[in-house]
Amino acid sequence: MKNSSETGHILDLFFSPRRVAIIGLSRNAITSPVSVLTTLKNFGYTGDIFIINPNMETSTENGIYPSLDDLVESIDLAVIIVARDHVLDVLRACVRNGIRAAIVITQGFAEADEKGKQLQTELIALVRDNEIRVLGPNTIGVSNAFANFTSSFIEIHNEKTPVGIVSQSGLFLMGYNLINNEPAGFSMAADLGNAADISLVEVLDYYAEREEIRVIQCHVEGIDQGAAFVEAAARISQQTPIVMLKAGRSKQGQAAVVSHSGAAAGENEVYQAAFRKAGVITAKDAEELRMLSKALTTYALPKGRRVAIMSYSGGGAILAIDAIEDAGLSLARFADSTKAKIADLFPDWIGIDNPLDVWIPVSRDLQSSFPRILEAILDDDGVDAVICIYCSYTQPKYEAYDCTAHITKIAGKYPDKPIACWSYGIDIAGFTKAIEANGTAMVFPSLEAAAVTFAKLVQYRENRDRLSAPQVVSAKVIDGSTIDAVLKRAQLGANGYLFTEALEVLESCGLAVAPWRLAKTEDNLVEAAEGLTYPLCLKVVSDEIVHKSDSGGIRLGIKDQQGLVNGYRALYANILQHDPAAVINGVLVQEMASKGKEVMIGARRDSVFGACLILGTGGVYTEIFDDYTFRLPPVTEAEAVNMVEELHLAPLLKGVRGEAPCHIPSIVEALVKVSQLVTTYHEIAELDINPLIVDDRAAVVVDARIFLNGDN
Amino acid sequence: MKNSSETGHILDLFFSPRRVAIIGLSRNAITSPVSVLTTLKNFGYTGDIFIINPNMETSTENGIYPSLDDLVESIDLAVIIVARDHVLDVLRACVRNGIRAAIVITQGFAEADEKGKQLQTELIALVRDNEIRVLGPNTIGVSNAFANFTSSFIEIHNEKTPVGIVSQSGLFLMGYNLINNEPAGFSMAADLGNAADISLVEVLDYYAEREEIRVIQCHVEGIDQGAAFVEAAARISQQTPIVMLKAGRSKQGQAAVVSHSGAAAGENEVYQAAFRKAGVITAKDAEELRMLSKALTTYALPKGRRVAIMSYSGGGAILAIDAIEDAGLSLARFADSTKAKIADLFPDWIGIDNPLDVWIPVSRDLQSSFPRILEAILDDDGVDAVICIYCSYTQPKYEAYDCTAHITKIAGKYPDKPIACWSYGIDIAGFTKAIEANGTAMVFPSLEAAAVTFAKLVQYRENRDRLSAPQVVSAKVIDGSTIDAVLKRAQLGANGYLFTEALEVLESCGLAVAPWRLAKTEDNLVEAAEGLTYPLCLKVVSDEIVHKSDSGGIRLGIKDQQGLVNGYRALYANILQHDPAAVINGVLVQEMASKGKEVMIGARRDSVFGACLILGTGGVYTEIFDDYTFRLPPVTEAEAVNMVEELHLAPLLKGVRGEAPCHIPSIVEALVKVSQLVTTYHEIAELDINPLIVDDRAAVVVDARIFLNGDN
Repeated sequence: MKNSSETGHILDLFFSPRRVAIIGLSRNAITSPVSVLTTLKNFGYTGDIFIINPNMETSTENGIYPSLDDLVESIDLAVIIVARDHVLDVLRACVRNGIRAAIVITQGFAEADEKGKQLQTELIALVRDNEIRVLGPNTIGVSNAFANFTSSFIEIHNEKTPVGIVSQSGLFLMGYNLINNEPAGFSMAADLGNAADISLVEVLDYYAEREEIRVIQCHVEGIDQGAAFVEAAARISQQTPIVMLKAGRSKQGQAAVVSHSGAAAGENEVYQAAFRKAGVITAKDAEELRMLSKALTTYALPKGRRVAIMSYSGGGAILAIDAIEDAGLSLARFADSTKAKIADLFPDWIGIDNPLDVWIPVSRDLQSSFPRILEAILDDDGVDAVICIYCSYTQPKYEAYDCTAHITKIAGKYPDKPIACWSYGIDIAGFTKAIEANGTAMVFPSLEAAAVTFAKLVQYRENRDRLSAPQVVSAKVIDGSTIDAVLKRAQLGANGYLFTEALEVLESCGLAVAPWRLAKTEDNLVEAAEGLTYPLCLKVVSDEIVHKSDSGGIRLGIKDQQGLVNGYRALYANILQHDPAAVINGVLVQEMASKGKEVMIGARRDSVFGACLILGTGGVYTEIFDDYTFRLPPVTEAEAVNMVEELHLAPLLKGVRGEAPCHIPSIVEALVKVSQLVTTYHEIAELDINPLIVDDRAAVVVDARIFLNGDN
Repeated sequence: MKNSSETGHILDLFFSPRRVAIIGLSRNAITSPVSVLTTLKNFGYTGDIFIINPNMETSTENGIYPSLDDLVESIDLAVIIVARDHVLDVLRACVRNGIRAAIVITQGFAEADEKGKQLQTELIALVRDNEIRVLGPNTIGVSNAFANFTSSFIEIHNEKTPVGIVSQSGLFLMGYNLINNEPAGFSMAADLGNAADISLVEVLDYYAEREEIRVIQCHVEGIDQGAAFVEAAARISQQTPIVMLKAGRSKQGQAAVVSHSGAAAGENEVYQAAFRKAGVITAKDAEELRMLSKALTTYALPKGRRVAIMSYSGGGAILAIDAIEDAGLSLARFADSTKAKIADLFPDWIGIDNPLDVWIPVSRDLQSSFPRILEAILDDDGVDAVICIYCSYTQPKYEAYDCTAHITKIAGKYPDKPIACWSYGIDIAGFTKAIEANGTAMVFPSLEAAAVTFAKLVQYRENRDRLSAPQVVSAKVIDGSTIDAVLKRAQLGANGYLFTEALEVLESCGLAVAPWRLAKTEDNLVEAAEGLTYPLCLKVVSDEIVHKSDSGGIRLGIKDQQGLVNGYRALYANILQHDPAAVINGVLVQEMASKGKEVMIGARRDSVFGACLILGTGGVYTEIFDDYTFRLPPVTEAEAVNMVEELHLAPLLKGVRGEAPCHIPSIVEALVKVSQLVTTYHEIAELDINPLIVDDRAAVVVDARIFLNGDN
């Protein structure tokens, strides 16, 4: 770990510059409260500030110069707020004067109109061809409490919290902290703006190297370098937690993202799969982002999900139970020895159990009973974390009822068992301040926030364990030569996809495909069916027919040879009627799969993150019930098992109402193999197995399609 | 509308007593800050307080007496905090002295052990037999800012907000307000405790009659008088919104409810159906309860769901879009005339659209541009509500950037278009105070809270419209005589339900049942099948066979007469093997329904709310995908349509991928008829139609069961 003054990293020039030139500041802005200069001075910055403005009177004393060319001093960082038409000129002046870092605050680039896009392209070219790096454009820039430096034009917080934030919006630099007017919750901040040059990954890596930063907060609307992000985030997450808010989840939000930061707005499911692969902790909204990063600087990670509830209010305890169940946590069971330790504090008619209503002992003698009860609970091996619900007494007149000192003291004694407080009553501000004073416990704005935070802390511990475990991807080697040959001879027809070749490819991967033969003519139909077991089905093979069933190109449930011939003729007659011009390459004769449950396995390529793997309920139910799960390949067997578990369909696959369970290892094997296939063969743009029919012994591919890349 | 001093309601004695006796106060409690007496005095109470304690020195001057019998003054309200063993004696003394109202704060009754349950039973008997009413036991009692009266032993807020709260936990009296240490948010409060006497419905009605109360906040863990609640809440909701937090949703929560307030913990789905019927606004947690009741005192109800977003931050606008989409709201479209009105304020390269990033005009000249933009948006007929995202400037040095006065002024001008603010930056407290000063707009703790609040305001408007519309329940009369006859002759067998009788009952209601005959012997099998169209199926009819299919008691897909006889014999052989002792009443011969989509219609009786009606996806998918919806009958056709719409299955029923849509009016008709049936025939404890097969022309009952009440 290094601190900023030692690394010599290019981003040091942005976060800890010693000499800054501000270009484009108006005369009024010198005294305006809303100005880069004013904010920077109020931030306690002790470096040198130079104002570049040809329309102002030159003053060496006040650091005012007509142009960068007139400056003698070497400048670490240029902060550029000129109109967009002048930005490139100023950057050229920076290059000319050996300035290696510039923040372009100016708006009106790729997020705006065509001209703005053109300007951004020119800016990128300039950066590529010269010794200069740019943050922005369309950014508020950076903030760094450790160097008392900010480029914000609005007053912002300056505090040495061990949290660094990287964002695609200035909103997060300004502190979106609303609860009790809390401090900002970060010490270092970067607004990427349009991210024309300095990227998300660079800032993540920079924060990860800082010893001052223990938690990274991240707000993105879109990510451009998917693979680089996943690689960096997965590496960093093993040491430093990354809490991520992905904005623009909704359809309308995705549209707005493009016009705001010009970032790629991929599908939400793929982002979630990427975050999962990277071990990133996801926050559902800005408030959760704030809460989770505060929690990660306050608490160690709990060992499990078993929560004890200690409450002054029975009603509050019931609300807490709802909250922990919703968050996927469970109610701890107290050991008998725990109950025995504190039994004398309660009247006989109260059953001591979790949740524990402690009002009676606390109202009798808080100072002696409170610490005994809380310690007894924390001593219980069956308890991983505690939610405490208190009425807030810290006013002097309530001294006898003030539990805050007990909580902070005991929290320090049991660092691996987080204590979350929720407080009600007339003195919440005082209570919160007292509890959070030494940074070992937090007061949450709601029980739901407390429960979700615990759940995400546990999940992050699991993420870290998964990331640091050896990534065993099943070693079964795909028969590459066959697949190469199949893909090489494959000719995409008008329907755009491969059918029989897809079945061959999957067979080559070792997947079971319902046995099939290709009959080129009626003459070799019966021969083709030899060795297949009735009942059979027929499926037309044609490059020109997109929907086989719509054209009458499928015949099911053929029981014998006579049926086979009749079916073949009926199929041809149907096609002739529906698609008279279609060239038919042949007819697939296939065994009907035995009855089973239908799932679908899919893969496709996302423009940001590359290949992604999908498992879902088969048939129409996939869409109706949104029953699918995404991963970025390659997936391990453990991950594939996890995918199956995540389906709503999982209980049905495991067998309900006395049915035999489906053979889940076969689904897992198919997933791992498809994962290997699409990881190896980049020419596969999209793949669909639907349905994969699973019974109690095996999983069989019945139908499949492969789309190849256009350039194949 | 009446105010408290005029009504002469029995609850006036609880909320606005003029002379109060406190029984059970210890010597220490007289001076302790945690004491009914201390709190009451600090609350500004000006009535007379009497302390009843035989162990203290009598002092007429200080109002201290050894017993109630020594008091000359007539007492309006007794506040009882003696040990549970003495509560009944004290209540008897109250009765003896003509006291008609008592709050029993004491714990240890039905929420505790067997002895406590017995004591509560005795308390109920005492109340029934005498002229006294009791709030509690196990309660903090009441609070009423209009009379400066409270029975709380802990200091609580005293403010004249037009909100009344009724709760099953003292937590809510204490004010669970956490955001910026806001005030409590209510003026009148009642903790029902165990609700042995004074009930939820009584307090709801009392609040509804108060002119001081415009919004009722309600927290329940369980409801005892379901029908009375629904009747009262539906009546009240048409004038006064009721915001409801139902605690104990989770399984573990339901278990805890019983031990906390002894209340009935019914199923969450039935509660939701009841709240829907009553037009009650539901809050998901304590924070939402607070937020929604504040919003209902701040805003008029918006006309629709079209939200405009006006933001200082493009990033914030995208977060807001996610929030409104999640809440079921939509992004308003600005009229061209709206855009034209403000075009001069923006640079050319910015497209004026919703969401609107107003940073540039605001940073140039807030005081002239801000009101113009906000008014242009509110003038737009396509906008129902506005979310405003601001950086919070109200400090003197930022005077030029302070928009708060504009917002409050404009909010007053457009009362039917709510403006919700979300603010970030260093002066949130000041901003919030300025915005909320005159009660026309709110600053929300999150964009999600703002969006959810708008959505619930709209939903409440729709609830009111629905409740005030004439409740047209389809007038088609059920053929009562036939059903009477069927139910009269029905004899429940060992399997506990009716099968053929259920089909008869449904036919009598006018539902289409797949044609069937009962064959008592093999001799009349063929005769029974005459007039039926093949393919047919056979189903065993036996009072002793619970699972027809498990016993081999079902044969499907019978194509002809020979198949019929063979099937019949095979069925008997199967039964003989599986259930040799079973008495077989006959075999049902039934036409196979044509292919279609399967739904299930069910009804059962909830111990709290009575009959409830269920529509779900048919077959195993109901449970796997949790795809069902509940209503309390009777349902109107409109409500039945609504039930269909709520299913995940709805798109499939409407036809996807070119399929013909299912005949939804047939499902609606079946729902309305089943609703009428279970509303009329209380002896039907449970009813299941599964599946109801729906194709493009009709809905046909294939299988059904009716369970009768045990006492039938």
